[in-house]
Amino acid sequence: MTGISAKSARTMAKSNAFYAQSGGVTAVINASAAGVIETARANRSRIGRVFAGRNGIIGALTEDLIDTNREPARAIAALMHTPAGAFGSCRYKLEGLDENRAQYERLIDVFRAHDIGYFFYNGGNDSADTCLKVSQIAGMLGYPLTAVHVPKTVDNDLAVTDNCPGFGSVAKYVATSMREAAFDVASMARTSTKVFVLEVMGRHAGWITAAVGLADDAATPVPLVLLFPEIAFDEAKFLRIVDERTNRFGYCCIGVSEGLKNAEGHLMAEAGTTDAFGHAQLGGVGPRIAKLVKDRLDYKYHWAVADYLQRAARHLASKTDLDQSYAVGKAAVEMALAGHNAVMPSIVRVSDKPYRWKIGVAQLADVANKEKMLPRNFITPDGYGITDRARAYLVPLIRGESPPPYRDGLPQYVRLKNVAVTQRLAAKFTI
Amino acid sequence: MTGISAKSARTMAKSNAFYAQSGGVTAVINASAAGVIETARANRSRIGRVFAGRNGIIGALTEDLIDTNREPARAIAALMHTPAGAFGSCRYKLEGLDENRAQYERLIDVFRAHDIGYFFYNGGNDSADTCLKVSQIAGMLGYPLTAVHVPKTVDNDLAVTDNCPGFGSVAKYVATSMREAAFDVASMARTSTKVFVLEVMGRHAGWITAAVGLADDAATPVPLVLLFPEIAFDEAKFLRIVDERTNRFGYCCIGVSEGLKNAEGHLMAEAGTTDAFGHAQLGGVGPRIAKLVKDRLDYKYHWAVADYLQRAARHLASKTDLDQSYAVGKAAVEMALAGHNAVMPSIVRVSDKPYRWKIGVAQLADVANKEKMLPRNFITPDGYGITDRARAYLVPLIRGESPPPYRDGLPQYVRLKNVAVTQRLAAKFTI
Repeated sequence: MTGISAKSARTMAKSNAFYAQSGGVTAVINASAAGVIETARANRSRIGRVFAGRNGIIGALTEDLIDTNREPARAIAALMHTPAGAFGSCRYKLEGLDENRAQYERLIDVFRAHDIGYFFYNGGNDSADTCLKVSQIAGMLGYPLTAVHVPKTVDNDLAVTDNCPGFGSVAKYVATSMREAAFDVASMARTSTKVFVLEVMGRHAGWITAAVGLADDAATPVPLVLLFPEIAFDEAKFLRIVDERTNRFGYCCIGVSEGLKNAEGHLMAEAGTTDAFGHAQLGGVGPRIAKLVKDRLDYKYHWAVADYLQRAARHLASKTDLDQSYAVGKAAVEMALAGHNAVMPSIVRVSDKPYRWKIGVAQLADVANKEKMLPRNFITPDGYGITDRARAYLVPLIRGESPPPYRDGLPQYVRLKNVAVTQRLAAKFTI
Repeated sequence: MTGISAKSARTMAKSNAFYAQSGGVTAVINASAAGVIETARANRSRIGRVFAGRNGIIGALTEDLIDTNREPARAIAALMHTPAGAFGSCRYKLEGLDENRAQYERLIDVFRAHDIGYFFYNGGNDSADTCLKVSQIAGMLGYPLTAVHVPKTVDNDLAVTDNCPGFGSVAKYVATSMREAAFDVASMARTSTKVFVLEVMGRHAGWITAAVGLADDAATPVPLVLLFPEIAFDEAKFLRIVDERTNRFGYCCIGVSEGLKNAEGHLMAEAGTTDAFGHAQLGGVGPRIAKLVKDRLDYKYHWAVADYLQRAARHLASKTDLDQSYAVGKAAVEMALAGHNAVMPSIVRVSDKPYRWKIGVAQLADVANKEKMLPRNFITPDGYGITDRARAYLVPLIRGESPPPYRDGLPQYVRLKNVAVTQRLAAKFTI
């Protein structure tokens, strides 16, 4: 390991790269991995090997690195059509520099041991912050490191970027699923189910809930009621509108965010045993809303909770989302090679019609720990629907299909070999 | 209406046809409707108009008929890629002939008023029985009617036929969804969710639960535990196997039938407030199983209930299922024209490898009110998995894709005009 610290101008010398996936995975995060790895391979004169963290940043801390060079080009290409995190992800938040400086120093030790000069971190708000801190500690320790964050989150709540890779595919899934279920309910409503409830993800911001609204359009109108996390649940008003729509259209479909809150700001899903909804620990605001409709309005109901199905549904991924996910991975490497540090490729919307986008450069300091909420003017004044402005924003993000290859009726997803890199450090690190 | 009863040889004369959808709808039942209507249109010298019952048999009883001749050919063709019941379906069981002969006589009155000589009834067990009874009462009343049942049920439990139209698409959906979720869970299991539960349909027979098993195959093994309605739930044994697989593989996925029963034969979903699972009315055996795993094994869990999403998912329909759904609709008309009465087109498996099938003629008396259960040798001896025999049966049924057209990122499904036929009867009928 001697000599590594002597390197002075990292951007001119050849060194290895580290890539890790962070937080909840998506249908297309592996496309970003493919973007990083293929672009690094295309720049072998500058980037040696790409190591991936097994289970995200934990892999760096424990020196459990995966040698992506052991994967053939076709396996990396197959990441384009494979959902979830091919190297494993984790929910593990590094504390602040002051609280746990040792963790950050450990990361630098591992990077130094493996001649890692590039750090690509693929995640959401928290990981943007981590990426920034890693960049800062490297500077403090005089270790030459280029840190670039690769955006990813189904929650679509990252600042600066117009939208987040991973969101468009969830949006397409929930809108398609609601449309399909609405056709089902409409055909049964005369004698059977009249109210259908679909619970979707997005605990803090209602982007995914808004996407459910796309199920209803001019060609195929659907009586929809959306319950956003941004709008405090008003039971009487909600029941009135559900009753009204069910009477008028014969049925009604409800899209509810897992993050729906009551007027006191408490999550409905955690409202406990003291309210009318039943046992809290079973979770699921969807069934609670359905039961409320049954108890108060006596309509026959069905409910679905898509849970991981919505974010893992690579079979229904948005082509736009897929393209952008690859593009941010590719751009991250290009930015690093161009000398950018502590940045994130952002998606810049050039125009709505036709939809045009390009990659921009966002400063991590402007992204880290910020949360982009759904604008109020994306929600109709009554609080239960989406506006034309929301549609103009959302529709381009779900456009296009890119189905995976199928064999015997099922999508063929790749599993990488994930060969471990030989450890070089004597010191172990325990999570 | 004079003269109608004077017709003697129905099979030689031209008359109208009545088509109705019955019971729970599927992703491909409209393909059967297309098969009936297009084949009738191709035989205009024998079949006049095709009337559809609005909301199934209720439309016949209330003389609320839809004139399918008002739909252009392209709208009928679009039924091929449109899920649910285009004319509306219903859950309405006609009683026995002895209990409510008036209902059957009313049907014949309506048929006579609209010169209907062909009755095509698209449904499951119950509707096969109804179809048979309608055929019988027509005979008793001396009304010339040819009655043919068109098979449909996601439950796959009709007798005689090798499989049921509608099942293959649900099977493809649940296997794909479980595979995708398994990739998600596998990538998060190090620090987050270790056990994932997917609840699927199939209250009486475990065909759909068995299909979840296809998510696990040689190319992409998944640690799966299946809970069939046929196998009484053994809590201790179940927890042992989940613990064992989670320890061994790092995670575990569970597919559970909504019809899972305890040793006393009671539905787990209706086990009430007296057991450890929580409030019964919230429904959902999936969340109950997940909570059990959490309470006893302390693994972090997630659960999904696909509900209508699974049977409405035309975007992921099986091409085999779609082809067969159309074929039984087409064959129903051809059989009627060939003079068959009180029959049902069945799907006959000619061979597994390569998969070959043909249409057979089943006598309704052999189909009505029978239930085809999942054979015990399709389930592994331990009761938690599927055998090679099950795979050989299931795989051909989910093979092939036939995606719908998309516009702006969403499937474009047709809504028919559904123009009502002018009523001819003075007497009204109330449901």
